[in-house]
Amino acid sequence: MKGAVPVSQQAGSQPVFATRSELSKAVDQLRDQLGEDAISTEDEDLRRHGYSEWSSINIDTLPVAVAYPKSTEEVSQIAKVCSQHRIPLIPYSGGTSLEANFSAPFGGVSVDFCFMDKVLQLREDDMDVTVQPAVGWMPLNDQIKDSGLFFPVDPGPSAMIGGMVGTSCPGTNAVRYGTMKENVVNLTVVLADGTVIKTRRRPRKSAAGYNLTGLFIGSEGTLGLVTEITLKLYVIPQETSVAVATFPSIRSAAATAMSVIRSGIPIAAVEIMDDVQIGIVNKAGGTKRRWQEVPTLFFKFSGSPSAVKEHIQQVKALSKRQGGGDFDFTSDAEEQKALWSARKEALWSMLALKREGDDVWSTDVAVPLSRLADIIEVSKKELDELGLFASALGHVGDGNFHESIMYNSRDPKERQMVEDCVHRMVDRALEMEGTCTVSFSTPQRPGTSNDLHSSRH
Amino acid sequence: MKGAVPVSQQAGSQPVFATRSELSKAVDQLRDQLGEDAISTEDEDLRRHGYSEWSSINIDTLPVAVAYPKSTEEVSQIAKVCSQHRIPLIPYSGGTSLEANFSAPFGGVSVDFCFMDKVLQLREDDMDVTVQPAVGWMPLNDQIKDSGLFFPVDPGPSAMIGGMVGTSCPGTNAVRYGTMKENVVNLTVVLADGTVIKTRRRPRKSAAGYNLTGLFIGSEGTLGLVTEITLKLYVIPQETSVAVATFPSIRSAAATAMSVIRSGIPIAAVEIMDDVQIGIVNKAGGTKRRWQEVPTLFFKFSGSPSAVKEHIQQVKALSKRQGGGDFDFTSDAEEQKALWSARKEALWSMLALKREGDDVWSTDVAVPLSRLADIIEVSKKELDELGLFASALGHVGDGNFHESIMYNSRDPKERQMVEDCVHRMVDRALEMEGTCTVSFSTPQRPGTSNDLHSSRH
Repeated sequence: MKGAVPVSQQAGSQPVFATRSELSKAVDQLRDQLGEDAISTEDEDLRRHGYSEWSSINIDTLPVAVAYPKSTEEVSQIAKVCSQHRIPLIPYSGGTSLEANFSAPFGGVSVDFCFMDKVLQLREDDMDVTVQPAVGWMPLNDQIKDSGLFFPVDPGPSAMIGGMVGTSCPGTNAVRYGTMKENVVNLTVVLADGTVIKTRRRPRKSAAGYNLTGLFIGSEGTLGLVTEITLKLYVIPQETSVAVATFPSIRSAAATAMSVIRSGIPIAAVEIMDDVQIGIVNKAGGTKRRWQEVPTLFFKFSGSPSAVKEHIQQVKALSKRQGGGDFDFTSDAEEQKALWSARKEALWSMLALKREGDDVWSTDVAVPLSRLADIIEVSKKELDELGLFASALGHVGDGNFHESIMYNSRDPKERQMVEDCVHRMVDRALEMEGTCTVSFSTPQRPGTSNDLHSSRH
Repeated sequence: MKGAVPVSQQAGSQPVFATRSELSKAVDQLRDQLGEDAISTEDEDLRRHGYSEWSSINIDTLPVAVAYPKSTEEVSQIAKVCSQHRIPLIPYSGGTSLEANFSAPFGGVSVDFCFMDKVLQLREDDMDVTVQPAVGWMPLNDQIKDSGLFFPVDPGPSAMIGGMVGTSCPGTNAVRYGTMKENVVNLTVVLADGTVIKTRRRPRKSAAGYNLTGLFIGSEGTLGLVTEITLKLYVIPQETSVAVATFPSIRSAAATAMSVIRSGIPIAAVEIMDDVQIGIVNKAGGTKRRWQEVPTLFFKFSGSPSAVKEHIQQVKALSKRQGGGDFDFTSDAEEQKALWSARKEALWSMLALKREGDDVWSTDVAVPLSRLADIIEVSKKELDELGLFASALGHVGDGNFHESIMYNSRDPKERQMVEDCVHRMVDRALEMEGTCTVSFSTPQRPGTSNDLHSSRH
């Protein structure tokens, strides 16, 4: 039908994307330029890039091709060809998102950065490092540890820096070190038309020009494809300690966390887990120890030995004042890992208990600090009333908390019940001047299990 | 000449602004809507809003009117009328900028927020506060001090929150608490057409949506007029101490600052001043004490009493290792103020020594941490060779430093010499992957002396 105008191009305000024949022309063009292996259209590959068992949201469309660039230059070539043919581009690194950040609602090309996984330059004296998108934060820290420096943003273990930029990722250390917003020095970005820009230069602080770095962080790939990231590094603290404190109620646990923050004790992290979540960790058996199945706070302390000791005593006193029970702490690295692992294993543990046909709905809301105990208490009560397997946990120091609900999406009544519960929770957060990043879910399709960790949690 | 198209409207890619008659129509319209006093066109008022003796940059044009809104709604009305008539809008709060942030290169209306100077809501338990643009950071801290909370960003004493948002202002506490970028929760902004938006909701952390808050911070009013600002607050530290350390050379002082940062000692602030700058402070006589006229570091420590003690000892040891001389410290609030005042008085002191006809050229560059000792050493040498009254100081913990050069702009030879020196310094910073925010100057006109402090320094 040479010369005919495809129907899709006649639409008015709707975006108009490539036709099937244009798509295949673009794929051929990209294979010519980048080599046969640079583009995959195999079913299994498309599915792996458009669906995740782990995500709360999955949509019905998949990408039509997956590109595997090896350099910024190749990403630019991909963008040029795709923009010429009006083909959407979706960046993909760890694929660990709970929120379908890698979804391809209009088909399009998923750009998988797996070959761009290098630490490009570590500058110890400047306390920064430049990496490619598919560097994981854990391998990064392992690779640079001899410098005495580390990158503090610590989401799920499999998350990669590229996706962490795209989702403006926090982590348990955010109370002390901030989120990605506070820890990216500059970005190299390929824009939709293939133009390569650098968002700013390399001093740790700069007020010159618009804050483009901040604009790309959290933009989920919608403004461009990030191909190089310079990150701020910090000195590994002299001493670290972890404490686990139990409480008679979720409210008293949340109230303790608030009073610690409000008193200005410079804790490195504080996380909350409810009784159900602790039970899940016990059942999964991923940690060495058996935990008391009650509302629990996990604290991390860091600094000089005397500061750490002092802060532990202050936090212990505040916990007691709220009726707190056990207060275990340790400065031994192995024991710390064992204590903190209960928090880190939380999502994994939930998944391990999933039966065939189960779905997990994860929610993510944040409220002003003073409202956290309220929203956690009410939401926890509603979760219990659901009669389903549902747990709550959160980065309580930032006013952020998550619910995970296991349910059967093919049972319309159960699905509706869960949906109503989640919507009430989101409405409640919004009434409290809060925000949410997940507020709906769509039916899940059975898929492959590839990445089990979230870049948001 | 009814119906004639003004020449300015025939231009192609150049912006086309209101004609004189349109301007006066707009002013009448605004007076009708907001009251007679809401708009001033008096010469003295125009000059006070378009020229500053203090700024390194002053241009030849002035605003054509000054608007004095009392609410977001009035700002929106001003924007609507001005956008209808193609009149530029320039926000004005403290007017303390060194870099002509309030300049009106195309005439236009300066919007002075002096009547929007209220602390609207302090939420102690959420650790945030909502203020109007013309609230000064010092009066704010004074007003909220009974809550045990404070706002940490501390530029020159007269700076106001509105301008601090516009310039993405740092301050001496940036090493510990970050700059404005890290400390604004949300903004209410009036866009060019009068639309009122809120950049985000009120949790301390959120990854939902584009980071519009970050985009407006540092945009210098070019994207909209900020009318309400919600700021993060912090708990006032239990103990604060200030130390002053002297050094045999500017390089050894800078190297000590770097080694303190690199060792991870959590100092609250570190500032550098050269021998000339210390001499200026002595000459101005603004502080109680006479300072040794040698390169000097000012440190601030905060935290628990034992942590502060420990950090002071660690910093003292690092200073000695670089050949440091005296190391005075004090935890007494009055003595602290006296010690820190030398740094805070630096710019004021320089101005106090200005003779009739003198101009001050201030520069602002930042480089990666490892290059700071290099750039300070070379730049200091060049400043000395100028044979003029010139000093260096900086927020050394962020790789940021400033030069101030006193010269006579009406002497073409002297002017050229200073310009060359500044350009070399800027080129050097850029070669080191650094940035600058001031790289040029224009002849200064004699003007009124209104605000003596910068919102950047």
